[in-house]
Amino acid sequence: MIKGYAAYNAKEELKSFSYEYTNLKPKEVKIKVSHCGICHSDLHLINNDWMMSRYPFIPGHEVAGEVVEIGSDVTELRKGDRVGLGWQAGSCHSCEDCNSGNENLCSSAAATCVGRNGGYAEYVISDSRFAITLPYELESKYAGPLMCGGVTVFSPLRRNNITEGKRVAVIGIGGLGHMALQFANKMGAEVTAISTSLSKKAEAESFGAHNFIVSTTENAFDSYANKFDLIINTIFAPMDWGSLVNTLRSNGNLCFLGAPPEPVSVSAFSLLMKQRQVSGSVIGSPEMIKDMLRFSAKHNVRPVIEVMPMANVNEALKRVAENKVRYRMVLEN
Amino acid sequence: MIKGYAAYNAKEELKSFSYEYTNLKPKEVKIKVSHCGICHSDLHLINNDWMMSRYPFIPGHEVAGEVVEIGSDVTELRKGDRVGLGWQAGSCHSCEDCNSGNENLCSSAAATCVGRNGGYAEYVISDSRFAITLPYELESKYAGPLMCGGVTVFSPLRRNNITEGKRVAVIGIGGLGHMALQFANKMGAEVTAISTSLSKKAEAESFGAHNFIVSTTENAFDSYANKFDLIINTIFAPMDWGSLVNTLRSNGNLCFLGAPPEPVSVSAFSLLMKQRQVSGSVIGSPEMIKDMLRFSAKHNVRPVIEVMPMANVNEALKRVAENKVRYRMVLEN
Repeated sequence: MIKGYAAYNAKEELKSFSYEYTNLKPKEVKIKVSHCGICHSDLHLINNDWMMSRYPFIPGHEVAGEVVEIGSDVTELRKGDRVGLGWQAGSCHSCEDCNSGNENLCSSAAATCVGRNGGYAEYVISDSRFAITLPYELESKYAGPLMCGGVTVFSPLRRNNITEGKRVAVIGIGGLGHMALQFANKMGAEVTAISTSLSKKAEAESFGAHNFIVSTTENAFDSYANKFDLIINTIFAPMDWGSLVNTLRSNGNLCFLGAPPEPVSVSAFSLLMKQRQVSGSVIGSPEMIKDMLRFSAKHNVRPVIEVMPMANVNEALKRVAENKVRYRMVLEN
Repeated sequence: MIKGYAAYNAKEELKSFSYEYTNLKPKEVKIKVSHCGICHSDLHLINNDWMMSRYPFIPGHEVAGEVVEIGSDVTELRKGDRVGLGWQAGSCHSCEDCNSGNENLCSSAAATCVGRNGGYAEYVISDSRFAITLPYELESKYAGPLMCGGVTVFSPLRRNNITEGKRVAVIGIGGLGHMALQFANKMGAEVTAISTSLSKKAEAESFGAHNFIVSTTENAFDSYANKFDLIINTIFAPMDWGSLVNTLRSNGNLCFLGAPPEPVSVSAFSLLMKQRQVSGSVIGSPEMIKDMLRFSAKHNVRPVIEVMPMANVNEALKRVAENKVRYRMVLEN
């Protein structure tokens, strides 16, 4: 029996829950959870905001732990390995996305806690190819938030070739944004934080921001025309996308990591004039996660976390829902 | 004196016009025009659609001809060289765009017939770095349309790494589109033509299209989900951009070469799910033009043209305005 904390109904507190999982499939591993971060997606799943939750289920998809059992065909991992597991716990391994190293885009991707039980538990089951060995420098309590939020911001930075001399802006200084600032800074970029509130300026600077824009001031972006190679948007609120596109430098990219509910409306003329792009990015492939973990270990990128015992999961979820956590909540077994 | 045909007022017929240009600047060349294509942009300039025309001026920016005089510092070209000249006839050569090989994005770019006199004339003047030597296989009458329309479609194909196995759609089978189909086919892509009318199907296939979509039929794009690596839009009319974005394969790109007047509205969620992009592209750098000319010579890519004597410029412009030309009109001296 695997014990954990499950949502039994939408918008209710989690309660104890156990499920049987005896026979690992050939490529599966069983991970003993030491830590599991809380991502806003967990709240959406608990509340059935995406109309796809099936109850009861155990949330949690920012896992760090130890491999305690391996399936008959697992070759990449051994018992005792310390691994991380993020949003994705499986894919078809046969489509063009999987075959081209874009497993994160696989239409048959399995999410760690959608239609299955996740990491607010003693153990969690995953396809071994999504359980990624953690570098020894990286403490387990920091690994969970990197596995989901971390790779979500790291992937667009890497895929847009952010290096020395590039200019990156990050919209939203929260769970994702505070890691994005660190990654961009350590990649050598000139980093600008964009927030609705001046109150986060000092902290944004401590994460590596060189500049700070308060997005709610009038004409906030007027003096930033043709400035950024990449703008990473980590928030869901609508913004003046047209003005933001005009802050992109030649061949620059405005990249959405979250999807505002309203359509994004931009001028084709603005896209044309400097060959700009508007794009989306979603988590990262296993190879991207490995790259991100190596980078985090080497450059000392760490999420700022608040740790609470797993048993206090409801209190922890409440603090996340109320946006009181700076910057990522991690449950500990 | 340089003799040509100028617009004296918006929306009027062109009339004879002469201007003096005695002292070439050090980096300039004088080109004896043998041919000049007619691009829709010429019509927009003649009609002052973009509110930036100053009269009288000689239109024309799809030039082929011979270098007859060179400035004191010209090293790239010699008298007698056969060259092409497109939309751009100069740039600052000192900004970050110019220094990174993106001269076409230079904010101080000079357009061949904006605020100066273009190619519907006996001679035209240009910065020598935008007068590109023509491969000997390429007849002059075909070169003009390649210099503007050709590189406009070639650049996004190259920058999106279109090669064997990629899938490209081209919206609009006109002056630009019929060259895009040829380039994409010769790059090895599976090519789909998208048009409002079934009447262009046979011709689209002759240019290299493997598939044909009539965009005006109901649910036209429903069976093309996750299909295209690149969609090149050559038209100005509004379309159902949301449905088109959903026809993009993972990491696919919907690229605008013309700017529809209405904003382009897309779902951020659709961008996210397959890491799609919406982008713009504008002409091409001198290096891109050289690459395009080499490619055209090697793979026998040619615009389909209708040739008329330069003296018949008004009749030629009328045929272009009435969309009667399949596919590009070229004036001949």
